Amino acid sequence: MVSVLTQIKETQAANPIDRLLAATATDMAKVNALILSRADSHVEMVPDLARYLIESGGKRLRPMLTVAAAMLFGKGSGTAINFAAAVEFMHNATLLHDDVVDDSDMRRGKPAARMVWGNKASILVGDFLLGQAFMMMVETGDIASLGVLSSASAVMAEGEVFQLAKTGDLTTTPEDYAEVIRAKTAVLFQAACEVGAMSSGADETGRQALATYGLELGKAFQLVDDALDYGGQSGTLGKNVGDDLREGKMTLPVILALAEGNVAEREIITSALGQADATDAQVSAVVAVMERHNTLVRTMELAQAHARAAQQALAVVPESEMRALLVDVVEHSVMRAY
Amino acid sequence: MVSVLTQIKETQAANPIDRLLAATATDMAKVNALILSRADSHVEMVPDLARYLIESGGKRLRPMLTVAAAMLFGKGSGTAINFAAAVEFMHNATLLHDDVVDDSDMRRGKPAARMVWGNKASILVGDFLLGQAFMMMVETGDIASLGVLSSASAVMAEGEVFQLAKTGDLTTTPEDYAEVIRAKTAVLFQAACEVGAMSSGADETGRQALATYGLELGKAFQLVDDALDYGGQSGTLGKNVGDDLREGKMTLPVILALAEGNVAEREIITSALGQADATDAQVSAVVAVMERHNTLVRTMELAQAHARAAQQALAVVPESEMRALLVDVVEHSVMRAY
Repeated sequence: MVSVLTQIKETQAANPIDRLLAATATDMAKVNALILSRADSHVEMVPDLARYLIESGGKRLRPMLTVAAAMLFGKGSGTAINFAAAVEFMHNATLLHDDVVDDSDMRRGKPAARMVWGNKASILVGDFLLGQAFMMMVETGDIASLGVLSSASAVMAEGEVFQLAKTGDLTTTPEDYAEVIRAKTAVLFQAACEVGAMSSGADETGRQALATYGLELGKAFQLVDDALDYGGQSGTLGKNVGDDLREGKMTLPVILALAEGNVAEREIITSALGQADATDAQVSAVVAVMERHNTLVRTMELAQAHARAAQQALAVVPESEMRALLVDVVEHSVMRAY
Repeated sequence: MVSVLTQIKETQAANPIDRLLAATATDMAKVNALILSRADSHVEMVPDLARYLIESGGKRLRPMLTVAAAMLFGKGSGTAINFAAAVEFMHNATLLHDDVVDDSDMRRGKPAARMVWGNKASILVGDFLLGQAFMMMVETGDIASLGVLSSASAVMAEGEVFQLAKTGDLTTTPEDYAEVIRAKTAVLFQAACEVGAMSSGADETGRQALATYGLELGKAFQLVDDALDYGGQSGTLGKNVGDDLREGKMTLPVILALAEGNVAEREIITSALGQADATDAQVSAVVAVMERHNTLVRTMELAQAHARAAQQALAVVPESEMRALLVDVVEHSVMRAY
C-alpha cells in the first residue's frame, strides 16, 4: 500500500495540472457525475453526441478552476459543483458550435462530433447543453453568479462573431485581436474563477482577484494556443500546425508579420491565408516570415505578461497551498509552448 | 379626431391578433425598445443580422402573450417587459439555428439571415441572442421564472434534436410527433404565458392555468402550421407547400397517411419524402393520398381539441376583457388553416 506521504510527494513532483487534478479530485468527482447525468436525455442522440465530446479526454480545466477558486475561500462543494458543471457545459456547447463554424474535422485527437452526427445535431446539442447549463445555475438560486455567467455567454458569442467578421481581414489590429481573445476565451476563464470564489462567499476583493486571475490566465492561454498553431516559440512544425492560417484566422503572430513584413513577405502570407488547401511548404514559408520578425516569440512574451498579471492578482488572497498551486498552474499553461 | 369609442369599436371588429396588439401596445412599445437595444453590439454584424430578423415583420405573438398574461393578473409592465423580450430573443435564436438546420432559404417572406450573412454568423448570433435573453431574465432577479425559461430552452433544443433524429423515419408514431411539437413549439408558448402570470404575482392556480393555456395553444399552433404546410384542411397548394415533405419532416398528416395508406400510396409518399427536388406534381399526389385518408382534416381536428383545452384552461381565471381576448386569440390561431 502506498503511504499518504508518498502520494503527496508524488503529487508535488507532478506537473501543476496533475496536482490541481489531485487537489480537486473529490469535488471534481461530483462535478463529473453531474455532467454525465445532465447530458442525459430520452432523445438518444443527445447523450450519444454530448458524451462523445464530454468523455473525449479534455482536461476540464475550467470547471477545475471553479472548484479550486471555491476551495481557496472555503471548503469547496456546495453551489460550486453546479457552477463548475455549468461552466463545462458552456465550454462544450461552444466547442460544438465552433467546430461547425470552423469546418473542423478533428477535436481532441478524434473526429469532431459533427463528422459523426453532422452539423445539424452539433448545433442543436450545443443549444441543449447551454439550456442545461442555465438550469444547473438556476438550481443554485444564486442570481449574482447567474449574472456573471449569462453575461459571459453573450460576450463569448459576440467574440466569436467578431472573429468571424475579421476572418481574412488584413486590416485587423493587435487591439482587435486582444478583444477577440478576451471575449471568446478569457471571459469564460474569468467567470469560472469568479463564480467559484462567490460560491464560497469570498469578499469583493477576493472575488475581483479571482476574476482578474481567470481573465489574465485565459488571455495567456489563448495567446499560447495561437503561438502553438504555428509550432510555438520554436516554430516546430507538427500536426495541426497552420490550421489558423488556412482558416484565415487573424491571430497575433500573423497580424504582426503582416504589419512588419515587406511586400514579398506579405505576399507569402496573403497567398496562404484563408486557403484551406495551402500546402505545408506554404505554412513553413509563413512561419519563416514570422521567425524573421520574431512574431511567435513576441506572442509568447505577451502571453508571459498576462501570466504574470494572473499570478500577481492572487497577491491579495491569503497564502495557502491552493494559492501556490494556482500560481503554478499559470506557469505550466504558458510553458507548454516552449 | 377619432373618438375613443370609435377606436374601441374598430378594435373590437378587428381580428383577435390585432385586438391583442392594441391591448398590449403600451407594454409592447417598451418590449420592442428593449429588444432593439439588446440586439446592439460593438460588433457590427451582430445588430445587422439580429435586426434583419427581428424587424422582418414577425407578429411577436409570444412576447405579446407574456405581456397579456401579466395584464390578466395585474397592470402589466414590471418584470414582464424583460421576460417578454427574453422570450422573443429565445424564439429568434431558435429561428436562426432552425434555418441553418433546415437549409431554409426564406424566412418571413425574405431571404433567411443565413442567405445574407451565412450559416456561421447565424449560429453565432443565435448564441448571442440566447445569452442576452438570459441576461435580461437575470436582471429581474426572479429565479423562479428563470427556471421556467431555462428549462424551456433545454427542452426546445431536445425537441429539435428529436425531430432531426426522426427525419425521414417511417416508423415515427403520432406519440413521437406529439412529443416533438410539445418540446419544440408548445413549451415556449407555455413558458411565455407562465412567466407573464408569475410577473404579476398570479397564485398557483392562475400560474398553472396560463401555463396550460400556453402549452395547448402552442400545440394547436404547430398542428395548424403542419396542416398548412400541405395546404391546410382544403389541401390548397400555394407557396411553401410541401416544404416539410421535401425536408423529410415526420408531421402528423404524413404519419397518418403512411400508417393507413396501401402499398401504392405509401410508395407515393416515400418516393417524395426527404427529396429536396420532389416536384409539385409529387407533392400534389401526396396531398391526394392525405385527402383520401382525411389526414389533414384530422390534424385540424386535433388542433381544435388543443384549442378547446387552451380556452378551457382560462375558466379558473376571473372574467375580464383580457380573458375574453385570449379566448378569441386561440380561435383565430386555428381558423387560419381553413
